[in-house]
Amino acid sequence: MDHAVTLEAMGSFYVGGRTIEVSDHEPRSVAISRDTHNYVHDPNGTYAIEHAYVAYFIPSGHSTIPLVLVHGGGLTGACWESTPDGRPGWLTAFLRAGWPCYLIDNVERGRAGWCSLPGVWEGEPVLRSEQDCWTTFRIGLVEDYSRRRPFAGSQFPVDALGELTRQMVPRWTSTDQLAERALTAVVDRIGTCVLIGHSQGGGLSARVADARPDKVVASVVLEPAGLPATPPRRPQAIVLGDNRDKHPVTHQLSGVWDRYRDVALEAGDCLTWLDLPTMGHTGNSHLFMCDLNSDQIAALVGDWLRTVL
Amino acid sequence: MDHAVTLEAMGSFYVGGRTIEVSDHEPRSVAISRDTHNYVHDPNGTYAIEHAYVAYFIPSGHSTIPLVLVHGGGLTGACWESTPDGRPGWLTAFLRAGWPCYLIDNVERGRAGWCSLPGVWEGEPVLRSEQDCWTTFRIGLVEDYSRRRPFAGSQFPVDALGELTRQMVPRWTSTDQLAERALTAVVDRIGTCVLIGHSQGGGLSARVADARPDKVVASVVLEPAGLPATPPRRPQAIVLGDNRDKHPVTHQLSGVWDRYRDVALEAGDCLTWLDLPTMGHTGNSHLFMCDLNSDQIAALVGDWLRTVL
Repeated sequence: MDHAVTLEAMGSFYVGGRTIEVSDHEPRSVAISRDTHNYVHDPNGTYAIEHAYVAYFIPSGHSTIPLVLVHGGGLTGACWESTPDGRPGWLTAFLRAGWPCYLIDNVERGRAGWCSLPGVWEGEPVLRSEQDCWTTFRIGLVEDYSRRRPFAGSQFPVDALGELTRQMVPRWTSTDQLAERALTAVVDRIGTCVLIGHSQGGGLSARVADARPDKVVASVVLEPAGLPATPPRRPQAIVLGDNRDKHPVTHQLSGVWDRYRDVALEAGDCLTWLDLPTMGHTGNSHLFMCDLNSDQIAALVGDWLRTVL
Repeated sequence: MDHAVTLEAMGSFYVGGRTIEVSDHEPRSVAISRDTHNYVHDPNGTYAIEHAYVAYFIPSGHSTIPLVLVHGGGLTGACWESTPDGRPGWLTAFLRAGWPCYLIDNVERGRAGWCSLPGVWEGEPVLRSEQDCWTTFRIGLVEDYSRRRPFAGSQFPVDALGELTRQMVPRWTSTDQLAERALTAVVDRIGTCVLIGHSQGGGLSARVADARPDKVVASVVLEPAGLPATPPRRPQAIVLGDNRDKHPVTHQLSGVWDRYRDVALEAGDCLTWLDLPTMGHTGNSHLFMCDLNSDQIAALVGDWLRTVL
């Protein structure tokens, strides 16, 4: 029981989004159950769309500022709960360290739901295949997928690749602004907080930190995509893994990160550059919270936060 | 801190489903981020679909059989976490009472994701409007929606109708068999357990209890839809709310429940009929876990379970 977590409160709520009215559609008979064969579904009415889902876990006797954990593209808040190979995730690590945690499913991911009403969202969603997970999350080279041979010294638990793939949900590529708006609503609801965002969620976190400097007192962005044009105004750490030049996405992003660092250095000293391989943590994939050294990286993030809060 | 919950373990995993191969599709360029404008998405590969998501919360020092909470149609596991008006949900109530809890998002709901690959699932999903929530969940009559006038003595927190509507996610009407298969896989993974299922999840729970009598030692079905043809072989409670004749769906279901009771009575004494209004709990909607007396109904379920386990 050394590692037990005592919670004074836990639960979930929804934040942000809007309602839309549907009218003049024909009701249709649908079989929602074998017992209710002639159920008539009337599609007209008021729908809630584009909100975020927020789960919260408040440790007893906490004295620190809450963390808001923001998943990346194609993922949900589940990515922080357990690692694909079944070890406790960052959520547990941060709760054990006494941090109140808010864990979101952003617009159209997981429990936030998605808008299935015709004509509201543009385009089609994208779902990640196992091969896409292998390459985009930088577990290994595309040509090494069939043998499941990861990068030398990879920290990703390769045997759990199938479990990782089951974490993927369809994601639109047209909803980034909606996700930013919903995350802003989350911050406005919670108040003073720290944002920890991964990949797409890292870009979102940096932009919302920029829009709400009175509330977001620090932020940690893990290999972010979609950074703002302006440098951070409050303490921000950018955390980068290994083998970044070995996939075209992070190869492109590396240029963006370098320019962001240069602009941030010129503007002041708000940005802390945590390049994991040069700090001695080699082999991290794009998914630090899934890697075998996930607890070490969580501790590193917690340590950095304590130096700036 | 009277009501603090101490957890020796928490986390999540995925169970069931299958993989499918997609080939011979054209890769297309998609803008997954403003920073990675020329990302080429290759839709060919191996996809994981039709699994369930399972979150688990294990109280320290527990000595009871775990509960598996199974949401209804259009809902996710979030329905057990908090009530729409922000009170602690059944999850917290059961954890405080010492029960280990497993909370699922079944196939295509919430964090289980859904199959966006073309040509795999039939039909279009249905999303619930606020008006649909009002009538189908038996908060009030359709003609009383505009004034938000619920049934006399209703236990539903009417001011939180908007929050309830945000809990809704698109649901297919063609995936009930897949959901049954995934719930069976959940039970096979967990082992000895109790199923507590609501509405569609109640029918699923009864069917899986029937298929796995060695593992599902008891079940509680809350206004279930999709009951099996055969009576329960292990202890089962059926829990029914108020105003059941005032909506066509529960009016239809009432006939099914009566016949199920008659067959069960003839077969033995495994079924306990918990008709809330005649037990003095009046005004319950279809959503007992959301109603103002949700803690009382959870306690009633817990008390019944202790008599049969």
